[in-house]
Amino acid sequence: MMRSNLLYAHSGGVTAVINASAAAVISAARARPERIGKVFAARRGILGVLAEDLYDTEAFDQDALARLTLRPGGAFGSCRFDVPSDDGHRVTDRLFEVFAAHDIGYFVYNGGNGSMDAVARLRDAARERAYPLICVGVPKTVDNDIVGTDCCPGFGSAAKYLATSMLEAGLDIASMVGSRGSVFVMEVMGRNTGWLAAATALAANGDPDAAPHIVLVPEATFDEEAFLAEVQRVTERLGYCAITVAEGIRRPDGSLIMEKSRDPRGYVQLGGAGSAIARMIHERLGYKHHWAIPDYLQRSAGHWLSAVDHAQAVAVGRAAVELALDGHDGVFPAIRRLGDAPYRWDVTTEDAGRIANLERKLPPAFLRADGLHVTHAACDYIRPLIGGEVAQATRDGLPDYGALPLLRVPRRLSPWAA
Amino acid sequence: MMRSNLLYAHSGGVTAVINASAAAVISAARARPERIGKVFAARRGILGVLAEDLYDTEAFDQDALARLTLRPGGAFGSCRFDVPSDDGHRVTDRLFEVFAAHDIGYFVYNGGNGSMDAVARLRDAARERAYPLICVGVPKTVDNDIVGTDCCPGFGSAAKYLATSMLEAGLDIASMVGSRGSVFVMEVMGRNTGWLAAATALAANGDPDAAPHIVLVPEATFDEEAFLAEVQRVTERLGYCAITVAEGIRRPDGSLIMEKSRDPRGYVQLGGAGSAIARMIHERLGYKHHWAIPDYLQRSAGHWLSAVDHAQAVAVGRAAVELALDGHDGVFPAIRRLGDAPYRWDVTTEDAGRIANLERKLPPAFLRADGLHVTHAACDYIRPLIGGEVAQATRDGLPDYGALPLLRVPRRLSPWAA
Repeated sequence: MMRSNLLYAHSGGVTAVINASAAAVISAARARPERIGKVFAARRGILGVLAEDLYDTEAFDQDALARLTLRPGGAFGSCRFDVPSDDGHRVTDRLFEVFAAHDIGYFVYNGGNGSMDAVARLRDAARERAYPLICVGVPKTVDNDIVGTDCCPGFGSAAKYLATSMLEAGLDIASMVGSRGSVFVMEVMGRNTGWLAAATALAANGDPDAAPHIVLVPEATFDEEAFLAEVQRVTERLGYCAITVAEGIRRPDGSLIMEKSRDPRGYVQLGGAGSAIARMIHERLGYKHHWAIPDYLQRSAGHWLSAVDHAQAVAVGRAAVELALDGHDGVFPAIRRLGDAPYRWDVTTEDAGRIANLERKLPPAFLRADGLHVTHAACDYIRPLIGGEVAQATRDGLPDYGALPLLRVPRRLSPWAA
Repeated sequence: MMRSNLLYAHSGGVTAVINASAAAVISAARARPERIGKVFAARRGILGVLAEDLYDTEAFDQDALARLTLRPGGAFGSCRFDVPSDDGHRVTDRLFEVFAAHDIGYFVYNGGNGSMDAVARLRDAARERAYPLICVGVPKTVDNDIVGTDCCPGFGSAAKYLATSMLEAGLDIASMVGSRGSVFVMEVMGRNTGWLAAATALAANGDPDAAPHIVLVPEATFDEEAFLAEVQRVTERLGYCAITVAEGIRRPDGSLIMEKSRDPRGYVQLGGAGSAIARMIHERLGYKHHWAIPDYLQRSAGHWLSAVDHAQAVAVGRAAVELALDGHDGVFPAIRRLGDAPYRWDVTTEDAGRIANLERKLPPAFLRADGLHVTHAACDYIRPLIGGEVAQATRDGLPDYGALPLLRVPRRLSPWAA
């Protein structure tokens, strides 16, 4: 078998454990020096490949790899860029030009559904060109929406952070209950799927009086009147109501809540679903309203990782290299659930082309019939994924993520005109 | 000396360590059974006293106290209510009626500047009535604005949470840098003071390229043009800019940024300073914009407490009981800084009346000359306050705050008509 170099790239939004996969890829590749030469990482994802902007990871010693695996964000940078299929192969040609210039025989692409599509298409493009390349994906997304895997690395840690946040904010707001009634709304990521919103239901642990009292997900059409009636019922019973809102909830006509126009002169109200929902409640029911938008905080909380999520991110990174060395082209390692309690899982192989551009949504069994909460079945599915903590080194009270030895690879090609 | 009961009450916004003070008060009071009989806690703060709505903390065994000290939010409830001075003593009369009915000889009031004022006024009212009451305050506020103490329990944990959040979000946004430029804005609490905003500067640890690149505080007037010029400078250098905004920043005319009217027809833009600043940058400079609003999350993050803050919350709770038993009336225990590195502190005594309704702001030496960041001196002051972590028990991946034995005290008086 040939010996060649491996190129790793992040794609799309990053997570708290994306670097755990990167570190596992590097370690697994180093363990097979007879097959893999250098391990490069693209700076800023696929755009870095096009720009021939690569890091040589040989600068990472064991200490640096230990820091890398626990560091949130994408250590090498990422980007949102889809390889176009209608540019006369211009972008794809450039990718292979860079692969050839740096003797890349393995391409490991860490991303979501769109990136798995890219893995399948690069496999096909390599075959058309008779270029010796093995393409393997590494699943990653806080949205948990990749088809073909029981869960996605990155989701468990974001889910743990958000469930913890709702638990703690729930204790806060419960202590501030007044005669007027108050609501707390937390807006979480999820344009098309409610996995992260559903995760906050773990905070209540089955207690109907505990936060969150309402969970709004994109899979259930938003019914304003039914929602407000439930807010009122909860608030009259408890004095307050805590609500999780996925950013992508929509009205029956398909419009996003964030686009709601409330002014009689028709101006479009700015802001996201969280503030819109909080203001709607305030205007219609008169309650005191607060809203939280964790935004990037929910996907970068390295100080509060799920140990299960981290272990799975490591496992899929390592498995990707093993799959590549075994000649599995155009695939990605997937997580398979073997049991719920105790939670058991292993890693299987999924075809990247089969699932590309699909999107896994919450199944109907995970939604309460009225669309205003999720079921015990949803909690039972998510609970194991947030399990366990990961100790982080700290310095002066903050996580000590340290510095990374980012060594650039000398360019061999002429510049790329984007 | 007389033996009588002690009444404890939370006041105002709660913190992640307010219950640590409560648990310390209960423990310290129990250690002196010859002087203190029962330890009651008012349900929902002073409103619970008026309503004769009290808990008997004898139901807390050692395990329950151990859970209490690590639980965020106000375990007994809190409220925002100032004892009026213009109601013909109606409210004050009722308070003393309740004190008398339950043999309250010690009142321990946990709150901020306004509560210290109440402590002083209740002391005076007791003397006027010749009612045998010792009133002692316990300082608490995430805003860190109480005069007479070097810092306020509750601040350190919120500061640690926000600095960690900025550190982690900064790694996330740095990895997503694109050609267009992007900004991340985090809005933090602080209507009149910038202590929490300043704390996020610890994330950069002196690195001018690290987040946050700009810190806006209420103590510095917001200059839109100077601010946007700095955002542009940072973004052109790094590709992105991370900004902390205190909710209470104001324009030269004194108006809050959240009240800005941008529509030519004059509608008032809703939403807080964070989204307003993010949108301002997007509209004026065209950058991609994200904003986070941690809201209650920043003051309830029990999973990521500052060990120093927790220890200080315990110390002031215990000291309040000792002060009361020593006959110090109308005072509160204050934190005194004895050294920066290593950080050393002790507890002193401050007169509640002297500081009432004052507000401690960031001193000029903590503000950079251009008003767009804070100084190393500010970081040196805050750094020790976020030091150390506190282990929390977890269950299924979430902090296990457990349940509390909340035992109501039978009423002895006729109902109070609010």
